[in-house]
Amino acid sequence: MEVESRYVAVKHHVEGFPCEDDFEVKKTRLRWTPESGERIAAYGAGEVVASACEEYEAGDIVAGVLGWEDYTLFSPSPAVLMSKLSTSNDLPLSHHLSALGTSGMTAYGGLYEVCRPERGEKVFVSAASGSVGSLVGQFAKLAGCYVVGCAGTNAKVDLLKNKLGFDEAFNYKEEPDMKSALKRYFPDGIDIYFDNVGGETLEAALASMNTYGRVALCGVISEYTDPGRRATPDLLEVIYKRIIIRGFFAWDFMTRFGEFTGIIGDWIRQGKVQVIEDVSDGMESVPSAFTALFHGNNIGKKLVKL
Amino acid sequence: MEVESRYVAVKHHVEGFPCEDDFEVKKTRLRWTPESGERIAAYGAGEVVASACEEYEAGDIVAGVLGWEDYTLFSPSPAVLMSKLSTSNDLPLSHHLSALGTSGMTAYGGLYEVCRPERGEKVFVSAASGSVGSLVGQFAKLAGCYVVGCAGTNAKVDLLKNKLGFDEAFNYKEEPDMKSALKRYFPDGIDIYFDNVGGETLEAALASMNTYGRVALCGVISEYTDPGRRATPDLLEVIYKRIIIRGFFAWDFMTRFGEFTGIIGDWIRQGKVQVIEDVSDGMESVPSAFTALFHGNNIGKKLVKL
Repeated sequence: MEVESRYVAVKHHVEGFPCEDDFEVKKTRLRWTPESGERIAAYGAGEVVASACEEYEAGDIVAGVLGWEDYTLFSPSPAVLMSKLSTSNDLPLSHHLSALGTSGMTAYGGLYEVCRPERGEKVFVSAASGSVGSLVGQFAKLAGCYVVGCAGTNAKVDLLKNKLGFDEAFNYKEEPDMKSALKRYFPDGIDIYFDNVGGETLEAALASMNTYGRVALCGVISEYTDPGRRATPDLLEVIYKRIIIRGFFAWDFMTRFGEFTGIIGDWIRQGKVQVIEDVSDGMESVPSAFTALFHGNNIGKKLVKL
Repeated sequence: MEVESRYVAVKHHVEGFPCEDDFEVKKTRLRWTPESGERIAAYGAGEVVASACEEYEAGDIVAGVLGWEDYTLFSPSPAVLMSKLSTSNDLPLSHHLSALGTSGMTAYGGLYEVCRPERGEKVFVSAASGSVGSLVGQFAKLAGCYVVGCAGTNAKVDLLKNKLGFDEAFNYKEEPDMKSALKRYFPDGIDIYFDNVGGETLEAALASMNTYGRVALCGVISEYTDPGRRATPDLLEVIYKRIIIRGFFAWDFMTRFGEFTGIIGDWIRQGKVQVIEDVSDGMESVPSAFTALFHGNNIGKKLVKL
């Protein structure tokens, strides 16, 4: 079989914020052998249209590392993450890319395995309306914690407080001083900081942290586009308060994928967890959907339907 | 009983590097009630000259938080760390203030409990000829690790390589670029960094760190006197490499004091660990002994004999 397949490519090395013009949609003819290089891998879900392996047959729905393209060729191997989804599943396919995919793994593993919250502990989540943050905050509430999130628009703050059950939320763009904002929202200090942004937010969180505080370092979006904005954490605070800062990502918990997604799936069915998704349509919208992530224009998991 | 007791006091708030003129030796008459405030607490050993409690009697040798003074008054309580030393002990009294005191606890707890070294792992120690670093390096060798230390003079480097058994050591003042120095000494990367200094050394160590690397954050001497020299660690490296950075100090392991010092004492008796001490004499030498710590003038544990 041979098909014409469009894919999104990067035109040139990107410095600072990516913009839509950095990308272009190209076409290729795909045959059985994978063609290499410029296509961009991304976590996605799709339908198998042809297969030469026993494990997969046409019509199967799979989720894993696909590409920004119409058709993806892959060879099954232990290193390739490609799970077959049950078509009898009562949850929307899109959830397998958000709460039941890498975002859910990151949120569940990062909170429960890295931070190990105890009932009554105080949890701060940055980028709290994002795909990971929105789940972390809800998971922390289910663990009996006091949860405060920050986000960049008042609509997001409303969502956190009124739909997702955060105890408090604030718009960091309206706070001239993050340290005093955190002192106000955490009069008893922060026990757990789930960090999606890095930079001065991390510095401020460390300053408000309690003894034996834990920082799950999940992303540093404020630093991706400008290394000059790197955090200069006060390491004396880290020592005196015996803080643990730990970097991790979703793949670290892959062996427990079934366990985690089983729990999260049950919570969704029981209405205990809301899944927030922000879906764009069509290959041409991939670059704008991607670049918008760096400007905080999405709410929840950003997905593109091809 | 009443005695005249000299003590070292701080004259005024100190900014930046402490200097000898910031201190003065004062006199007081000490009676049973503790007099407060300006005297400076320090870990030390002494002989009990009078006691109103059953637990202690005149002639006992004790180690714990005493003061920079001739005589210290203390009331035993669970919060006061004051251990009686056996006079039959075959090791010098001074060792109870270094390898068998807080430095030993910091080195043993920080290496074995915080970093959990495995045989064959690569360990980097900064301020490696200091009281803690000199022990960490030797302990790591006993754990079967490859150990490299950095220090600030060639004499210290010689000590590390020729007396303390470090695999390699280098003078950081002779390295124009710490990152390339570490790439040279750790062609296979760093698994454990025992950080006594913070600043750019921490940044460079993170850049050379392997996946699942561990940083024990024990001190940030390069930052104490100048917050402008704070480290700006590359947090993306921390995430991608799943690095754990953990602050701690000796007191965290107090419940295991006996266990740790038992092991360290055996190693010393067996000649497996060398204890490096740098002893000054007399109350008047306390300020110069203390301020010298900030300029790297000591080798091993700095002690003052009163």
